[in-house]
Amino acid sequence: MIVIYPGSFDPITNGHMDIIKRISKNSEKLYIGVLVNCNKKSFLTIDEKLDLIRCATRDLKNVEVITFEGLLVDLVEEKNIDFIVKGLRAITDFDYEFQMAQLNKDMNSSAETLFMMSSPKYTFLSSSAIREIYNLGGNIGEYVPKCVNDKLINKKSKEGRKK
Amino acid sequence: MIVIYPGSFDPITNGHMDIIKRISKNSEKLYIGVLVNCNKKSFLTIDEKLDLIRCATRDLKNVEVITFEGLLVDLVEEKNIDFIVKGLRAITDFDYEFQMAQLNKDMNSSAETLFMMSSPKYTFLSSSAIREIYNLGGNIGEYVPKCVNDKLINKKSKEGRKK
Amino acid sequence: MIVIYPGSFDPITNGHMDIIKRISKNSEKLYIGVLVNCNKKSFLTIDEKLDLIRCATRDLKNVEVITFEGLLVDLVEEKNIDFIVKGLRAITDFDYEFQMAQLNKDMNSSAETLFMMSSPKYTFLSSSAIREIYNLGGNIGEYVPKCVNDKLINKKSKEGRKK
Amino acid sequence: MIVIYPGSFDPITNGHMDIIKRISKNSEKLYIGVLVNCNKKSFLTIDEKLDLIRCATRDLKNVEVITFEGLLVDLVEEKNIDFIVKGLRAITDFDYEFQMAQLNKDMNSSAETLFMMSSPKYTFLSSSAIREIYNLGGNIGEYVPKCVNDKLINKKSKEGRKK
Amino acid sequence: MIVIYPGSFDPITNGHMDIIKRISKNSEKLYIGVLVNCNKKSFLTIDEKLDLIRCATRDLKNVEVITFEGLLVDLVEEKNIDFIVKGLRAITDFDYEFQMAQLNKDMNSSAETLFMMSSPKYTFLSSSAIREIYNLGGNIGEYVPKCVNDKLINKKSKEGRKK
Amino acid sequence: MIVIYPGSFDPITNGHMDIIKRISKNSEKLYIGVLVNCNKKSFLTIDEKLDLIRCATRDLKNVEVITFEGLLVDLVEEKNIDFIVKGLRAITDFDYEFQMAQLNKDMNSSAETLFMMSSPKYTFLSSSAIREIYNLGGNIGEYVPKCVNDKLINKKSKEGRKK
Repeated sequence: MIVIYPGSFDPITNGHMDIIKRISKNSEKLYIGVLVNCNKKSFLTIDEKLDLIRCATRDLKNVEVITFEGLLVDLVEEKNIDFIVKGLRAITDFDYEFQMAQLNKDMNSSAETLFMMSSPKYTFLSSSAIREIYNLGGNIGEYVPKCVNDKLINKKSKEGRKK
Repeated sequence: MIVIYPGSFDPITNGHMDIIKRISKNSEKLYIGVLVNCNKKSFLTIDEKLDLIRCATRDLKNVEVITFEGLLVDLVEEKNIDFIVKGLRAITDFDYEFQMAQLNKDMNSSAETLFMMSSPKYTFLSSSAIREIYNLGGNIGEYVPKCVNDKLINKKSKEGRKK
Repeated sequence: MIVIYPGSFDPITNGHMDIIKRISKNSEKLYIGVLVNCNKKSFLTIDEKLDLIRCATRDLKNVEVITFEGLLVDLVEEKNIDFIVKGLRAITDFDYEFQMAQLNKDMNSSAETLFMMSSPKYTFLSSSAIREIYNLGGNIGEYVPKCVNDKLINKKSKEGRKK
Repeated sequence: MIVIYPGSFDPITNGHMDIIKRISKNSEKLYIGVLVNCNKKSFLTIDEKLDLIRCATRDLKNVEVITFEGLLVDLVEEKNIDFIVKGLRAITDFDYEFQMAQLNKDMNSSAETLFMMSSPKYTFLSSSAIREIYNLGGNIGEYVPKCVNDKLINKKSKEGRKK
Repeated sequence: MIVIYPGSFDPITNGHMDIIKRISKNSEKLYIGVLVNCNKKSFLTIDEKLDLIRCATRDLKNVEVITFEGLLVDLVEEKNIDFIVKGLRAITDFDYEFQMAQLNKDMNSSAETLFMMSSPKYTFLSSSAIREIYNLGGNIGEYVPKCVNDKLINKKSKEGRKK
Repeated sequence: MIVIYPGSFDPITNGHMDIIKRISKNSEKLYIGVLVNCNKKSFLTIDEKLDLIRCATRDLKNVEVITFEGLLVDLVEEKNIDFIVKGLRAITDFDYEFQMAQLNKDMNSSAETLFMMSSPKYTFLSSSAIREIYNLGGNIGEYVPKCVNDKLINKKSKEGRKK
């Protein structure tokens, strides 16, 4: 089973890691697909995102991190992907994810989307909440993998020195 | 990938068939697990349910229909199942399915549940709606596989003769 | 525009009356369709339900109270009804009503269902809540039309005398 | 029955067309009200929106396309409109639409809002999804009326030549 | 602040205990109100429920377990209660609890209901799920307080002997 | 019981006032915490917000209006606050508020969040809807306290003169 887990990962969180570990355990190959969206401002650059995801997943041998710019379905076809996997945290995710799953299925009938429920302790975690805590000077160490926390602390201290 | 699709199937519908076909295509083996619940009155007997599911899935070579009475997690362990698959039709399914997925995961940490969204044309279909239409004398031919419709018409005419 | 407002009305509430008044104002004819379901135990008999609805709507000249036992779509065809109207109070109504609207549309393509949101002050009102308050001896005078309250007080005092 | 179906139509989709056809069939007159919001950037200009809607609805004799800038309730009064019609696709529409329906009712007590559920095959369609697919170079021909697709392809080729 | 936490407690779970501990910490007095509903069959008798709650809360000095049969608002008045506290686990709780909060407020304007979100690890826990696992012979030790588990194991072994 | 009611109050509405009055009645001290977010454009300046809230709450002796810029949990600790209070209007509030309540609890285990349901007549009211009506020249007198309406009319006439 070849699987892709697409997202923005701005930054990758322990909630993402929970899904990645649970799905990679039972897959042959798991692609982590980082969406490149030039029109939307993001907290991290694409290189920073890739760097953080690679350090967080370095022990998972069947995981490969890739980027994609166009339609997810084109990537699904190109890489012979069996399933798209998405995490569901809350009811408001449901409608948006349902819409995307149908559109992807509609554009490529072999693009089946599977959903996993987040583990309860991660249902309240989101990249946007982590960015907010980080920007307000709070400690995000419990919400992201250790190497991600270290690199983000480092980023902050560099940016502090620049000012 | 060995998968189980558990449910009551009272009766099996085209919505169930949609999930079964989409998941069996990419699995090694798909068990359809029919819950035997002695405390709950059902429309069909367990033998009728098995008969209908078997006729509806006879062309799917990697599908096997089994029954289970106790905890789903015991069956998952016994059959070396990788994933439990459930269909999500609507928002009200979400909370209940989330609860069951967590409890199953909690009782057996390898019991991962994957969710598939129903195809749009089946989101409004449920076994209970079909039972209601059938009991009111309506035509359920568009909502169930052909052999299921035939057998249910036959059941009705037999019951009619008994009265 | 000929409209039907179907339901159980066990009993009719001020929330039902709100929908009835708002829709009858702009319709030629409004049928109130009382579902007769022999399999389900109800608080009021079908005759009591009709009696209460008729007293509550006696000032609305274009309203007619009727019963139906089978499929709503058969009634829609028989009476040349343009629209089925349903009230939406809360998110949990949504999924069930969506399902019924699709099934009715599916069985008779001219059976369009229109939804009205309940007025805010009635969103918390339901027949089941009123039955519960009534059975616990509470005062339901603010939740049902005056003549309904009078008749239900009368019913209670009669039943009290019987015991 | 005089009805208005208000929206942004950026661009008009087959989901909008589904509601427009179903409601125009049973109305005397259906206004399609295009909201002009100077503060919000849109994909299409107001003239492009009107052009696309007019070509998509040219066969519906009782449909008239108009624009409005201020409060919807002022338009309702001016045009003697009986009902505002909105489509409901998903649960997340519900809260926002409920709020708008109450505010409109509150500002003009005769402004009743009626909701129609989208047909299942259109529940996953939104103008924003179509814009996204169009911008990524995908094919939107199945999601919009034919003349809308033609005009949007034309727009893209013109913009391509300009660069 | 005098508070009541009402419910069926059939049986009391670690999810209930989480709310009880969090609210009792900041209250003067916390009543646990066990609803006596003669019309509804329950798993435990009222005496068993009281026994289990008392053993589970024996270390919380400001907690008192009481029963109530009629309207909650009558109890609120009699005991000079400032707030009714309810736990919210999931979206489907929301509508029902909203309705009850409004009805209670409506019948006694000083009866304010406060809601607490369940801790993430208890969002999937419910008394009904625990009853189901218990009846299927599963281990409920992680979901209920220790003394509750001991007493329920004891109950099962007694009932086993009777048969 | 010392309580904080945090928010943007852009502007304060009758819905906010409903929660403020209901919670201040049973608290020793109620802080209204106005979030200062330099990154987000707002309709009112922070001084205008404070001015409007102070005039709206001048008769509530135990209410104090304060601002906060950083993490809410730091303020909770500094002011010895027992409970954070939030209003819930609709299902879409639920997921976001649940997330914030868990993060706050997680960052400071004594920061318990209590939720109150809005009164039915205010469920459709939001600051953003009021801003929209105000900007379109509509009358917001029924949705905000009298002194807030007066000051906002005054603001508009001043801004009109400037142009």
